[in-house]
Amino acid sequence: MKYESVQQAVEALKKLERTLAAYSHAMGVLNLDAATAAPSESYEGRGRTMEILSQVTYDLSTDPQNDELVAYLMDHAQELDPQTKREVEVLKKDMEHLHRIPAEEYVGFGVLINDAQNVWHKAKNEDDFDAFAPYLEKIVDYNRKFAGYYNPELPAYDSLLNEYEEGLTMKTLDAFFGQLRDVIVPLIAKIQAAPQIDDSFLHRHYPLETQRKFSDYLMEVMGLDRSRCAIAETEHPFTDNYNNKDVRITTHYFEDNLVSSMYSVIHEGGHALYELGADDCYNYTFLAGGVSMGIHESQSRFYENIIGRSRAFVHAIFPKVKEFFPEQLADVDEEMFYRGINKAEPSLIRTEADELTYCLHVMVRYEIEKQLIAGTLAVRDVPQEWKRLYKEYLGVDVPNDKEGCLQDSHWSGGSIGYFPSYALGSAYGAQMLHQMEKDLGDVFQKVSQGDLSQITQWLREHIHRYASFRKPGELFRSVCGEFDAKYYTDYLTEKYTELYQL
Amino acid sequence: MKYESVQQAVEALKKLERTLAAYSHAMGVLNLDAATAAPSESYEGRGRTMEILSQVTYDLSTDPQNDELVAYLMDHAQELDPQTKREVEVLKKDMEHLHRIPAEEYVGFGVLINDAQNVWHKAKNEDDFDAFAPYLEKIVDYNRKFAGYYNPELPAYDSLLNEYEEGLTMKTLDAFFGQLRDVIVPLIAKIQAAPQIDDSFLHRHYPLETQRKFSDYLMEVMGLDRSRCAIAETEHPFTDNYNNKDVRITTHYFEDNLVSSMYSVIHEGGHALYELGADDCYNYTFLAGGVSMGIHESQSRFYENIIGRSRAFVHAIFPKVKEFFPEQLADVDEEMFYRGINKAEPSLIRTEADELTYCLHVMVRYEIEKQLIAGTLAVRDVPQEWKRLYKEYLGVDVPNDKEGCLQDSHWSGGSIGYFPSYALGSAYGAQMLHQMEKDLGDVFQKVSQGDLSQITQWLREHIHRYASFRKPGELFRSVCGEFDAKYYTDYLTEKYTELYQL
Repeated sequence: MKYESVQQAVEALKKLERTLAAYSHAMGVLNLDAATAAPSESYEGRGRTMEILSQVTYDLSTDPQNDELVAYLMDHAQELDPQTKREVEVLKKDMEHLHRIPAEEYVGFGVLINDAQNVWHKAKNEDDFDAFAPYLEKIVDYNRKFAGYYNPELPAYDSLLNEYEEGLTMKTLDAFFGQLRDVIVPLIAKIQAAPQIDDSFLHRHYPLETQRKFSDYLMEVMGLDRSRCAIAETEHPFTDNYNNKDVRITTHYFEDNLVSSMYSVIHEGGHALYELGADDCYNYTFLAGGVSMGIHESQSRFYENIIGRSRAFVHAIFPKVKEFFPEQLADVDEEMFYRGINKAEPSLIRTEADELTYCLHVMVRYEIEKQLIAGTLAVRDVPQEWKRLYKEYLGVDVPNDKEGCLQDSHWSGGSIGYFPSYALGSAYGAQMLHQMEKDLGDVFQKVSQGDLSQITQWLREHIHRYASFRKPGELFRSVCGEFDAKYYTDYLTEKYTELYQL
Repeated sequence: MKYESVQQAVEALKKLERTLAAYSHAMGVLNLDAATAAPSESYEGRGRTMEILSQVTYDLSTDPQNDELVAYLMDHAQELDPQTKREVEVLKKDMEHLHRIPAEEYVGFGVLINDAQNVWHKAKNEDDFDAFAPYLEKIVDYNRKFAGYYNPELPAYDSLLNEYEEGLTMKTLDAFFGQLRDVIVPLIAKIQAAPQIDDSFLHRHYPLETQRKFSDYLMEVMGLDRSRCAIAETEHPFTDNYNNKDVRITTHYFEDNLVSSMYSVIHEGGHALYELGADDCYNYTFLAGGVSMGIHESQSRFYENIIGRSRAFVHAIFPKVKEFFPEQLADVDEEMFYRGINKAEPSLIRTEADELTYCLHVMVRYEIEKQLIAGTLAVRDVPQEWKRLYKEYLGVDVPNDKEGCLQDSHWSGGSIGYFPSYALGSAYGAQMLHQMEKDLGDVFQKVSQGDLSQITQWLREHIHRYASFRKPGELFRSVCGEFDAKYYTDYLTEKYTELYQL
């Protein structure tokens, strides 16, 4: 055996983790730069750099020495502390994955994504799906192949779902989405028959400079430490993290829309709190970062909707909102603002959707992804299928691809199977609220005073601090018991019945 | 011999160049991110990443296989094209350098710089030289050691100068600075006895948002292609480049100062034009990027001063400047503006200095660096010596270290020996103007119409396109003949005699 002691093997493991973390950090910052600051023609040089760095990452991850290392450490598992043991498990799983992906496909995919993101940006701006289609085709092909490599026993789309949320299947999702649809669709019908909410004041002129300052205020209310969390502007908002002292959120400002960036900042701020709340011991290890997309979205959508769109939160921030925008909101009171930001209305853009119709947007993407991966839908037919499903689920006509199937960055970023976690996360969040209130009583009392610390503290203690140490299903169950979508559907029914006096 | 053919060896060379370019790109973007967007606590994680990536870079650069490669290619030099031949020469020189630097010092220096930049930022803001002093001490020590490794036969400071400008020595600089001083000091004395220029209108309130748009306009006038060149905001303006399609400039806005950012943008824009004008064939090779600091500064200071502070340029842009700032400049005409931006007055801050007194600021740094490296000045005595020299050379009292020896980022970035190239570049630029006018006639005719293309084209053809292919001295001589500081002193004398009617 190559290793002379467990200590020596553990040191080799930690060194590998630190090295891979460095490459991941460098590539993350290159991607962030691409989205925030880089000039458009920079993609060529970045593509070359990414190709080289991801080849090194691949080589490091598939080094045959790692097999020896894993084997040795698994043999000595009882001598490892729980964190190291879990790190070995993660390495083992990642290696099994990577061993199955040929190097040229792994690297080729990285290069494709760099190009695809650049093309998607332009295609979206120019409403030109045909320009993006060849890239999406290749991305679908890669994902289908990767699904087979990851888990050849599973249907391909289940295998992809499993990457974002361990154990998630189409069977579970079909049932979950069915349950949501059974509640949401009748609620929307009742709302459409009820008197409509006026939210036109949210679309007055909101200057970018003031919106930027408003974002700073929102980050302050959320308790985001600016020495560890920065904000930037991108086409599509996202959160990125390199360690628990370096998290970035992004937003997109529209001069005729106050709530778009406002709720992007709160949503991404929820992701950021999760990353910032991880214990230091997970930095630069395989356990760094949030454990799954579902848990991640449970945090972001919890802050965005359950907190951010609550009466208590509006009560806390409204005086300040009026200070930022005194002219725009001169004729608006707190209740009008609360009702405005919660207006439910089927629409075109997922990220702008209200809390109630949001999951229907997710279902459209879920249905399309299922079919793309199964090979029953051709990429060229995506725009048409998108339009059909938006009409069927939301009753809206999609006028173009820019506001249709080109709106999201996920596919161009290579992710297929991610979207369902948005809906799942929303439902997780409602169940977490239930548990939190069991522990803490009425949490909205403090929220109405602008104090979110009690909530963040609870989430930090139960969720954030573990980073990826505990598996998502196990983590969720340990905090909330068995998952049940009823908490979410009850929450939605109660909120919207009161709001629209149904 | 390991290589079976020249072609095989050349391929190995090119692969090494591409790989090192990728690491350099990644580390460059990490540094750019640090200066523009990263939260303050991110330095710890970045330090770890930089340590790992620079260790890899070091290992790649000192790989014993490179010795074989260089030896093989040198033996077959007559079969190489001129570009490849020069790439081999550069690799040979770099390797000789690196072979002499112990790995732990190379990596340790990188880590030190990451920390030092962070500490310097805070120290500058808090006017706390003592906080920065221990870092500067280590930086001086490293530089002294590196100087010995680079070129043990030279005095240490000459060895450092040689890194920034091949062949430059203290002897040359002492003579050059003497020549400048003999002309500049009497000119300043005459100016101080003449009626003073009123430039108070440049210190009215200039909102940041409008200044940002003004920067866009200036970049347009300079012909900077925004799809290849982005602008960001930093503490201290700089230019960074990853290839000829990805160049970044930065600036710093002050609400009470129009010209600070204006001339930073033009200065950095000059650097950027140099990088953008390189021929494609040098991308991702050892010959990428400008050839020396002196040539680089000749470009930046040429655009900033010789063009940017000329009557012709002011004539071209002044109507637009008034459009941007109609209230601030309501009572200002073109001639007042021209005189205002050229006002000569001894002051504290190098980057804000006028064209005439600028070189005296450089001389202060030169004298201090010489003494630090020689060991005749202790780091703790730098503030005192700085104050003494500012009094002696410029006649000004330095009230604190923030506006004194903490003002520049160079030392915290690890650079000692860089400053003289600012003065040298200024003098190069004046001689280039002389040559350009021989070739093209009166170039200011087109400038007065806002057309800089003829000038940029000339510089591109004679300087920019070569990137680092031609050595700086040889390049300069091939374009301008022997260097003579007289072109610069004549230019200054003529300009300021007319301006102040001396």
